[in-house]
Amino acid sequence: MAGSTLGTIFKISTWGESHGKAVGVVIDGCPAGLELSEADIQPYLNRRRPGQSIYSTPRNEEDAVEILSGVFEGRTTGTPISMIVHNKSQQSKDYSEIASCYRPGHADYTFDSKYGFRDYRGGGRSSARETIARVAAGAVAAKILNQIGISFLTYTSSIGPVSIDRTRFDAEEIFRNPLYMPDARAAGQAGEYVIQMSKAHDSVGGCVEAVIKGVPAGLGDTVFEKLDANLAKALMSIGAVKCVEVGDGKQVSVMTGSEDNDGFCFDESQKITKCSNHAGGILGGMSDGSDILLRASFKPTPSILKQQRTVNKDSGEIEISIKGRHDPVVVPRAVVVVEAMAAITILDALLLNMTATMEGIRYFYQKMR
Amino acid sequence: MAGSTLGTIFKISTWGESHGKAVGVVIDGCPAGLELSEADIQPYLNRRRPGQSIYSTPRNEEDAVEILSGVFEGRTTGTPISMIVHNKSQQSKDYSEIASCYRPGHADYTFDSKYGFRDYRGGGRSSARETIARVAAGAVAAKILNQIGISFLTYTSSIGPVSIDRTRFDAEEIFRNPLYMPDARAAGQAGEYVIQMSKAHDSVGGCVEAVIKGVPAGLGDTVFEKLDANLAKALMSIGAVKCVEVGDGKQVSVMTGSEDNDGFCFDESQKITKCSNHAGGILGGMSDGSDILLRASFKPTPSILKQQRTVNKDSGEIEISIKGRHDPVVVPRAVVVVEAMAAITILDALLLNMTATMEGIRYFYQKMR
Amino acid sequence: MAGSTLGTIFKISTWGESHGKAVGVVIDGCPAGLELSEADIQPYLNRRRPGQSIYSTPRNEEDAVEILSGVFEGRTTGTPISMIVHNKSQQSKDYSEIASCYRPGHADYTFDSKYGFRDYRGGGRSSARETIARVAAGAVAAKILNQIGISFLTYTSSIGPVSIDRTRFDAEEIFRNPLYMPDARAAGQAGEYVIQMSKAHDSVGGCVEAVIKGVPAGLGDTVFEKLDANLAKALMSIGAVKCVEVGDGKQVSVMTGSEDNDGFCFDESQKITKCSNHAGGILGGMSDGSDILLRASFKPTPSILKQQRTVNKDSGEIEISIKGRHDPVVVPRAVVVVEAMAAITILDALLLNMTATMEGIRYFYQKMR
Amino acid sequence: MAGSTLGTIFKISTWGESHGKAVGVVIDGCPAGLELSEADIQPYLNRRRPGQSIYSTPRNEEDAVEILSGVFEGRTTGTPISMIVHNKSQQSKDYSEIASCYRPGHADYTFDSKYGFRDYRGGGRSSARETIARVAAGAVAAKILNQIGISFLTYTSSIGPVSIDRTRFDAEEIFRNPLYMPDARAAGQAGEYVIQMSKAHDSVGGCVEAVIKGVPAGLGDTVFEKLDANLAKALMSIGAVKCVEVGDGKQVSVMTGSEDNDGFCFDESQKITKCSNHAGGILGGMSDGSDILLRASFKPTPSILKQQRTVNKDSGEIEISIKGRHDPVVVPRAVVVVEAMAAITILDALLLNMTATMEGIRYFYQKMR
Repeated sequence: MAGSTLGTIFKISTWGESHGKAVGVVIDGCPAGLELSEADIQPYLNRRRPGQSIYSTPRNEEDAVEILSGVFEGRTTGTPISMIVHNKSQQSKDYSEIASCYRPGHADYTFDSKYGFRDYRGGGRSSARETIARVAAGAVAAKILNQIGISFLTYTSSIGPVSIDRTRFDAEEIFRNPLYMPDARAAGQAGEYVIQMSKAHDSVGGCVEAVIKGVPAGLGDTVFEKLDANLAKALMSIGAVKCVEVGDGKQVSVMTGSEDNDGFCFDESQKITKCSNHAGGILGGMSDGSDILLRASFKPTPSILKQQRTVNKDSGEIEISIKGRHDPVVVPRAVVVVEAMAAITILDALLLNMTATMEGIRYFYQKMR
Repeated sequence: MAGSTLGTIFKISTWGESHGKAVGVVIDGCPAGLELSEADIQPYLNRRRPGQSIYSTPRNEEDAVEILSGVFEGRTTGTPISMIVHNKSQQSKDYSEIASCYRPGHADYTFDSKYGFRDYRGGGRSSARETIARVAAGAVAAKILNQIGISFLTYTSSIGPVSIDRTRFDAEEIFRNPLYMPDARAAGQAGEYVIQMSKAHDSVGGCVEAVIKGVPAGLGDTVFEKLDANLAKALMSIGAVKCVEVGDGKQVSVMTGSEDNDGFCFDESQKITKCSNHAGGILGGMSDGSDILLRASFKPTPSILKQQRTVNKDSGEIEISIKGRHDPVVVPRAVVVVEAMAAITILDALLLNMTATMEGIRYFYQKMR
Repeated sequence: MAGSTLGTIFKISTWGESHGKAVGVVIDGCPAGLELSEADIQPYLNRRRPGQSIYSTPRNEEDAVEILSGVFEGRTTGTPISMIVHNKSQQSKDYSEIASCYRPGHADYTFDSKYGFRDYRGGGRSSARETIARVAAGAVAAKILNQIGISFLTYTSSIGPVSIDRTRFDAEEIFRNPLYMPDARAAGQAGEYVIQMSKAHDSVGGCVEAVIKGVPAGLGDTVFEKLDANLAKALMSIGAVKCVEVGDGKQVSVMTGSEDNDGFCFDESQKITKCSNHAGGILGGMSDGSDILLRASFKPTPSILKQQRTVNKDSGEIEISIKGRHDPVVVPRAVVVVEAMAAITILDALLLNMTATMEGIRYFYQKMR
Repeated sequence: MAGSTLGTIFKISTWGESHGKAVGVVIDGCPAGLELSEADIQPYLNRRRPGQSIYSTPRNEEDAVEILSGVFEGRTTGTPISMIVHNKSQQSKDYSEIASCYRPGHADYTFDSKYGFRDYRGGGRSSARETIARVAAGAVAAKILNQIGISFLTYTSSIGPVSIDRTRFDAEEIFRNPLYMPDARAAGQAGEYVIQMSKAHDSVGGCVEAVIKGVPAGLGDTVFEKLDANLAKALMSIGAVKCVEVGDGKQVSVMTGSEDNDGFCFDESQKITKCSNHAGGILGGMSDGSDILLRASFKPTPSILKQQRTVNKDSGEIEISIKGRHDPVVVPRAVVVVEAMAAITILDALLLNMTATMEGIRYFYQKMR
């Protein structure tokens, strides 16, 4: 069943397994005339690349992206953009022992249940390497959004019990620490916590937040294609995410209407704006012109050295210790994945929104002719 | 832009505004041969009907559903099922004063931003009456799922600060109290809280949980069409939902791998099963055979009598007090909406899953011929 | 399986059977701000209404359309437009004798093969009444296109062996004769032929042509979503169509490149144009600015009084004579159906095309803000 | 705008330009458990490969396909299958002179109209090389269909004025002559005609027919997703096709009901069957168990040496003679493209059809558990 294609106008199809020849993505529906080269994509991929700090797997691949189609003389032509990243550092032998047993917290059992067998090498299609394709497509989406004035601030807001102190929020700090936290002190504490749990042969979870600035009011739709609904799908589709929040998120369940509602007022340029942003920039499924605020909660890396109970489908119940190259925490490398998925989703809504009114359609075609 | 159609195989298209002539839904792709009549749908609609308790709006409509097509001699024919519920109790005059101002927490401003104007009567398309169509379609989906052995237990798990005590969980209690809580004592406390806040001209939020039993392992896909991703979209598309959780949900961010992972073992019938269910029945985007556990957090009803700051687009900043018929809490009536959206989503995944393997396809067509 | 929904942006879902309560359509994705009322739809429906001439079934229904949603104060709101036409003149008793046998040329056998049973009253979902929904949606699409400067000239080009004489083409004649032919003499001859075949208890086929003027160059896409590919689908989805042609159509197979190619030149306003239009206004899947030329060939009405060989699934091989109200030729009433399907398809391409270039996107959002 | 993705369950996304690095396809939704290797794909590609006879371009590329993902230990895993064919014989210098002018019959002008510029090298995305991706995907679809008992007989039925003599139809002859005609005498005459027109610096058109055997009754849907409607789209989406016919096709417009209707009878095994097959195996949009009969008419190759009138966008009206490597007739190489598109379409309908009835769904899930 088809499950690797996303989007209505800006439509992406990803492919590839951890230990196959390559991973890649085809973007169908990218507008023509965007200046684009590998240099626009690579920095995004580098943000999710492993082997960059003590907190991530030593599998150090350069993950160099190559554009195979859809760009001519430096600009997108409107035809599909195919991008490929070759796999270079596969060590299939590491995984032979888990071929017949089910790793707790992984998709091994569900793959076998659905398909009868699986590519067991490194998680196959469920590997975190699958996100390379998302990030490559997200880089293109983000570049387009940027030209409309939309920008992203995405960061780790907590690792295990260590949350950022919002009074110390420093956007520039995000890229200075390997955990991508906007608070140097929290980053230090979180780092220590990760090392401690790693030594205990365990792993930790955490949260990623995205602040999206400059989104014009009106993107998204009223019923099923609500902007927040599609963002929730996009984020929940990232492996390890178990909770998605918009604005005040889970907290709203204990708030009162007078606390949660955002009043309206006029800003200094006499434009209508919200006086606060509990809603996280989305009202009734449509962007409201305020910053869009998203939060995703990631579960701890399921691969741990600690002994765990499981079954071998041939030989019965066993204890398993997952060796190999695994991050003790997936959150820092997932920051750019969250950003990519949000960018892809918002771009699709932005393109769809162009067709919302007769006034816009008339205006567009009168200018065109 | 199209936003009222959902699903790939079991595809629903809803329509209708709060103060239009009617609301309805067309189900395209319902399997043929299902015994179906209005008597299957009406009980679901009755669960979301207003006017049933002191906690909900006195707008008491019978909301009687009529099937207009797709059923012949008591069975679905495989052609589209059109269902309609006429609006009978509209009081358009109640809304005239809000035509030119933006109610905090509502979609008024975003509608105007997107479309340039709006049907301001009772929230128009953003009214909770829109969920009638979802619930009618959900009743059909749930009936089909039931025949495969899939059932739903959906309830209010918290209202404001009052949560159910899980040691006192009583499924039969759910339909005994107007808040649909599975804990009589919590229901009593929550009821008092709602009355107290209502008297203070304010409103409250809360949480709905769904437990879905009997889902075969393997539904959903590995990448974008993950079962949890589509459930997140389905639930976040319900007005007022700001957070969706699967399994341990937000809590996973502070857990360790050894705490969050579910080991595997053999059950009494020597079938592989998970020893626990932190994952909430979904691993790697596919159902794992355990109960599926979902939670949605609802914001407080935005319509409150308390004075709020807002703007009138013609006359500037104003204070507004929202009169009219509004629930002080939407959660109890949203319980069946959550169930409906989950049923629609799981049915679509169940149908899509039939095409997953060559073995299944060969088997199906050998039997057919 | 879902098969009654069409379109990506302007998405229509139709429903209803010949002898059910009603037929209808939901348009999801209609742009906001279009002035719309039943008066825009009814004239289209009247063009396909039966009982208007000796050439069509005496089943005379007024087929009055009612808009149930999506229009407020005379303008579309951007939310789904639900339209309904009640069935009033069903005579189910006419069809009882064909419940267990398969009428040649009809969908009876395939319905039973697919679904195991069928709504046998008047062809059920396969009745020509299903096209009411298409025409209602097409009327909306055509109104929008009209505002962009796109217009339709659709007519009968042949009935049985009688073709129009293109040197006598008279657009104003189309609405003057009941066969919708743009050539009075051919209309007269065709009318006589229809009466003659009808007296012989037989039926006849024919062709419908559409000329679409004012389509801007560039609509449609290069590969699968070619404009001609989607028009072919739209027209072939009309019951009884067995052949779809674009431009010179079938004739191209016997032409040479130098005959079939259209050269380019400058028109009087120094705009690039084609010197001829063998291509029928579409090159490489995209509109080229010339008139779009389509032709659909319709098979003869399958319901005939003449004895035909068939089977009764209970009692074996039989002879059947189809009584009841049937047109001896479907072509004249199908003219508006062809126009409707073309309008729906071109509108969807027109809306999608707004997102084709960065220049257009930047332009649109700079103006919007 | 997205236009290179096709299908609902078996979904393909193609990419690549004539003179880019490669062309390829991602199949999302291929069932798991299919034995698959490059050896299944390559024979299909070889059927469309250029340079094999005097009738086709001397651009001789081996067009070797490589599977990059989705296959593990020789079987499909259910995850996306990415296939790539590298471009090796591009000669970009051949095309430099046509960069600023519009070749008659090509997509040059429409590309510029839509996107503002184009990849002018060898037709870019509109090159016939784009069909490599279709054929690779079609080979996979055909292999799956074959396992259900569905097979294809596809051939050239006419070249210019030379049609096959149906009384001399010989299926084995198809692969014996370079024109893929099932009639040796016609192939000889057609070959002479092609050479003659080629010497005259002109090109010729022709027809391709497909006979699809073994399709179970019931595939396709009643309204928009009619099997013939989707086949018409699939075939019309092939560059150069201007007419698609099903069964008796265009001829039905001059037939009477008693001539065109297929009676029903019992075959020797007492199964209901049609006594004739004017319908071409599809009634009411659904397969009827008879052979499916399709015909596509191809226009002559637009690239001809003969002088043609056109414009250079910089310098005004000019005469052009298209040099380079061009087939004088595209039909023979298009035979396998027609087969591929039909296979992809029928497979998608076959998969969707599994969800048509409650009986089938219950049966499937009872067996599964």
